[in-house]
Amino acid sequence: MDCSGPLNPEIVARLEDSFAAQGLMQHLGAEISTIRCGEVVLRMPFRPQLSQQHGFFHAGATTALADSAGGYAAFTLFDPGQEVLTTEFKLNLLNPARGQAVEARGRVIKSGRTLSVCQLDVWAEDGGTRSHVATGLQTLIRLG
Amino acid sequence: MDCSGPLNPEIVARLEDSFAAQGLMQHLGAEISTIRCGEVVLRMPFRPQLSQQHGFFHAGATTALADSAGGYAAFTLFDPGQEVLTTEFKLNLLNPARGQAVEARGRVIKSGRTLSVCQLDVWAEDGGTRSHVATGLQTLIRLG
Amino acid sequence: MDCSGPLNPEIVARLEDSFAAQGLMQHLGAEISTIRCGEVVLRMPFRPQLSQQHGFFHAGATTALADSAGGYAAFTLFDPGQEVLTTEFKLNLLNPARGQAVEARGRVIKSGRTLSVCQLDVWAEDGGTRSHVATGLQTLIRLG
Amino acid sequence: MDCSGPLNPEIVARLEDSFAAQGLMQHLGAEISTIRCGEVVLRMPFRPQLSQQHGFFHAGATTALADSAGGYAAFTLFDPGQEVLTTEFKLNLLNPARGQAVEARGRVIKSGRTLSVCQLDVWAEDGGTRSHVATGLQTLIRLG
Repeated sequence: MDCSGPLNPEIVARLEDSFAAQGLMQHLGAEISTIRCGEVVLRMPFRPQLSQQHGFFHAGATTALADSAGGYAAFTLFDPGQEVLTTEFKLNLLNPARGQAVEARGRVIKSGRTLSVCQLDVWAEDGGTRSHVATGLQTLIRLG
Repeated sequence: MDCSGPLNPEIVARLEDSFAAQGLMQHLGAEISTIRCGEVVLRMPFRPQLSQQHGFFHAGATTALADSAGGYAAFTLFDPGQEVLTTEFKLNLLNPARGQAVEARGRVIKSGRTLSVCQLDVWAEDGGTRSHVATGLQTLIRLG
Repeated sequence: MDCSGPLNPEIVARLEDSFAAQGLMQHLGAEISTIRCGEVVLRMPFRPQLSQQHGFFHAGATTALADSAGGYAAFTLFDPGQEVLTTEFKLNLLNPARGQAVEARGRVIKSGRTLSVCQLDVWAEDGGTRSHVATGLQTLIRLG
Repeated sequence: MDCSGPLNPEIVARLEDSFAAQGLMQHLGAEISTIRCGEVVLRMPFRPQLSQQHGFFHAGATTALADSAGGYAAFTLFDPGQEVLTTEFKLNLLNPARGQAVEARGRVIKSGRTLSVCQLDVWAEDGGTRSHVATGLQTLIRLG
């Protein structure tokens, strides 16, 4: 995993286009917060449309955010023209996802020729406090 | 796991109320398809708001559906007054989730005093064909 | 996944050779119980050398058995000359693995060009009773 | 998770006794390398009895080590008299586990009243190089 040079602007542009084309990310109100080599952070403010039955963020909403963050993190290390697909992921829910916003970070642990592995983490911001609400692992495949 | 008698109507009513209170399920257009002892099936028609960048269902949307299906499957075996929380889950994405609708089924494998384990499966319906798009495992904790 | 014809005897022979070459399987006292298209069952009698601190089978021993069962299940669907490697797996431990023997079954859910996904299950035999001690999912990659 | 004071010597003694009682750890030639608050490292030199078919460490052997490391890491935060049981784990295999020894580290991410979550990591030492061969997550339950 080579992060010595600057990110290829073509990769960043393709990533932003791809994110904008994810209907679900728009529907959930997610936005890109950070794009670095091997790392992407996405952010999603709370809305009642994202809740589970107790009014917290639904694990499905935070998982969607984490899945996209990891996919794009892997993508930052691809060559232009390559595509990324999630093959599997696992999340442990550590604390209730309660607050005004959540942030999901995908970080590449291993960028192989065929498979990439990312660590996924989600934090909730509630007033001034920030709590770690989920951690996980994700495998992705490189296509093209 | 005792499924010899009929489902307690109070459990069914509480399940339906809880589902209706999940803002995310409404926002994604999900609905309850089946409630059986230890098994719940949820259904979600395709809309562009549920898509990833290639126009298929986003894994986050199908995962949200699967997570809720498993949670409610575990819930059918609880006593009235008990609550369910997902502690972790893992999904393998088997095929592109393409089509007019997806169905997620949660099925209880083990209903313990504290922890329950569910198998999660998602199918996509595309024209007349039905494909298995995801399979997974989920651990849930019983509260109260 | 085509299981219409009989298993290629060359695949069976290579599988048996590979199993015999796994030092760990011999060290744990495991043996092949069944080889079918897309399904392999391995068996391991109890010995104190396989125990955890309460005298049951250590989850590491049952996991090793399950991992090999799944790997060989995927292998039954490969072409001669191809190799299999596990890329990830997840196991839920459902019940204490107590008894005279355990059996681990790997069953192919999806046999893709690059990746295969197997369901893993482990049962313990204790006197006349057989209990489901673990269930899991495994991703494997095809090489060569 | 309170690691402000020194480790309770009773916990350390019980951990060492428990490890010595795990027949599998002796059978695999594993030993305790580090015990800290919320973190345990186990070490296992290579022997042909630990191999898979290509002569590397079998994933089952490294998983057994990682599972025990995580269990004991959670245990360092328990009260005397409490027991630990793994409920599930997931490992991603990042690189071939080749070399003279492997080291598995379990580190507590969340120590809850009922459930603990650990991060599991395994490194292989091959000559002077050290490679990250596996990373995972584990859920454990506190009993008693």
